[in-house]
Amino acid sequence: MIPLRPNIRNMTGYVPGFQPRDEQRWIKLNTNENPYPPSPRVRAAILAELGEDGASLRQYPDPPSTAAREEAARLYGFDPSWVILANGSDELLNNLIRAFAEAGEEIAYVQPSYSYYATLAEIQGARVRTFGLGEGWDLLDFPPRYEGKLFFLTNPNAPLGFSYPPAFIEELAGRVSGMLVVDEAYADFADGNALALVKKHENVVVTRTLSKSYALAGMRLGLAVARPEVIEALDKIRDHYNLDRLAQAAALAALRDQNYFRRAVEKIRTTRDWFSTELRVIGYSVIPSSGNYLFATPPDRNGRRVYDALFARHILVRHFSDPSLSHGLRISIGTREEMEATLAALKEIG
Amino acid sequence: MIPLRPNIRNMTGYVPGFQPRDEQRWIKLNTNENPYPPSPRVRAAILAELGEDGASLRQYPDPPSTAAREEAARLYGFDPSWVILANGSDELLNNLIRAFAEAGEEIAYVQPSYSYYATLAEIQGARVRTFGLGEGWDLLDFPPRYEGKLFFLTNPNAPLGFSYPPAFIEELAGRVSGMLVVDEAYADFADGNALALVKKHENVVVTRTLSKSYALAGMRLGLAVARPEVIEALDKIRDHYNLDRLAQAAALAALRDQNYFRRAVEKIRTTRDWFSTELRVIGYSVIPSSGNYLFATPPDRNGRRVYDALFARHILVRHFSDPSLSHGLRISIGTREEMEATLAALKEIG
Repeated sequence: MIPLRPNIRNMTGYVPGFQPRDEQRWIKLNTNENPYPPSPRVRAAILAELGEDGASLRQYPDPPSTAAREEAARLYGFDPSWVILANGSDELLNNLIRAFAEAGEEIAYVQPSYSYYATLAEIQGARVRTFGLGEGWDLLDFPPRYEGKLFFLTNPNAPLGFSYPPAFIEELAGRVSGMLVVDEAYADFADGNALALVKKHENVVVTRTLSKSYALAGMRLGLAVARPEVIEALDKIRDHYNLDRLAQAAALAALRDQNYFRRAVEKIRTTRDWFSTELRVIGYSVIPSSGNYLFATPPDRNGRRVYDALFARHILVRHFSDPSLSHGLRISIGTREEMEATLAALKEIG
Repeated sequence: MIPLRPNIRNMTGYVPGFQPRDEQRWIKLNTNENPYPPSPRVRAAILAELGEDGASLRQYPDPPSTAAREEAARLYGFDPSWVILANGSDELLNNLIRAFAEAGEEIAYVQPSYSYYATLAEIQGARVRTFGLGEGWDLLDFPPRYEGKLFFLTNPNAPLGFSYPPAFIEELAGRVSGMLVVDEAYADFADGNALALVKKHENVVVTRTLSKSYALAGMRLGLAVARPEVIEALDKIRDHYNLDRLAQAAALAALRDQNYFRRAVEKIRTTRDWFSTELRVIGYSVIPSSGNYLFATPPDRNGRRVYDALFARHILVRHFSDPSLSHGLRISIGTREEMEATLAALKEIG
């Protein structure tokens, strides 16, 4: 028998959101992708890197992704030693667990939020604890002092869409004896973020992704902002060539085009707020959202029924079988036209 | 103090080969890059994936890299369930350690070969053992039965360039109670490989990279061939979106263009053999190489002196300070013109 580690043998892998093969035939609102293309400068930067014959690809990329790291640092107001780029923010979540949690030690996250934290902990052999949510999104049974190695706070929360104010996160940072990782995958769509707390509290790490707000899910680009001591540890753990040449070029170009970025984010926020209002008009209960998606519950609280009816109309949203979520749907915010079509379908479905 | 794991705090990161900023001004023979561009179909496939506005990048990639995996499987004569694609073969080496070695358990490799195995083991908290090489490249002190979890055999050996015949590897597979990972980063330049042994022995894993023979170091593409049980474990551990859309397109196009691939490899082999002969003529001792590089020792056995003199002439090769290697140089095989210039410089240096 092949001598696999027992935790690996016994675990089930993470299953990402369904991606239909015939993408063109769907209104795809299930994985929180950006409905707009990335900045045109991304394609231009990739073409420039490729040159006439793709010859640059024969050479290794810059190991630390220097240019993109410096651009992100400038954008967020940090020294580059506080920033690391990665092959998706998932790489950073993985390597944060490897940096801080030995096998048998504990990490925690909010239930519901991003269950991939649990998968990553399982690979490491770390223990997992979850904290549920109360009425006002308070963390149920959260101890006066949390002694686990890492606490992952998805903010804005996915799939629910609400977000905690900085004051809440700051209080939490003081109660976490390990690291508080604020997973800000969707923060660009929110009114606030925790970047200022990274400077104030040595145990706060912020992770970001270019997948959603920069429309680069297909390129796998994420970053983290933390103290240099944390960044140095993440640099030791990451693959020394973690980002290929085209990904580095894409990241740099996307971060530099802030005008394009702001316009795209603003369009999505406007559509989100309009769609939320319209859903409430037809009797849905909608959690005010700080992300590029919203969590909505139909009047009969039968999320599955509406999911199936939308699916039959080639509109793909996300339904979770978890009993705490099965009454509703997570709907990504597409273009205005896509959301109008979805609204019309929901009215028809009833 | 930030609660880093002690092994992470204490380790020194891996330092990849030096990459000069002003690449155009160097003959760069230090990181075994391919001197020829990748197949023109690679650039074409990337352009096709990008489309007119890069819009495909807004959507997540295919999680298992299905098309590229199927192409690799067809090429090597395996069912796709025996193949996995990754963000460089380094990702697979990393995840093999995570799949098989708990903290405190042992992995081993040959000294000298690829020291990054030790870095990856350190991250995991695994113990590392090395086996030296005897006169005929036999493994010194290798036990009748090796009880560690993984044994990494770089074949062809880097930096020395020699390669073991399949019969040697097969005997080794029977003596390793854990997994025998044959790291075939350079096997495309050799006369043989261990793929047939993957079918015969359940503990043999072969890893490959597209960095060298397919000239895609800048894209980070690797793959492994192993039993489905091993592949399933590696699939659970890898990031579910480990390869971005452009990398998947590049891998598929490169693997499909076998004519281009064979011609480039043949040119490099021819140049390697010519350069080996010429080096011997001027008194160098050269280990017969199965890679796209060779290990050569000047008559005075002062590798550092020759390295410095080449560096002063803007020719970059690799010198290792390790006492077992410091007498020589590892020289990547460039174009015929680059190797002629290097040979002329070596004659001048004396």
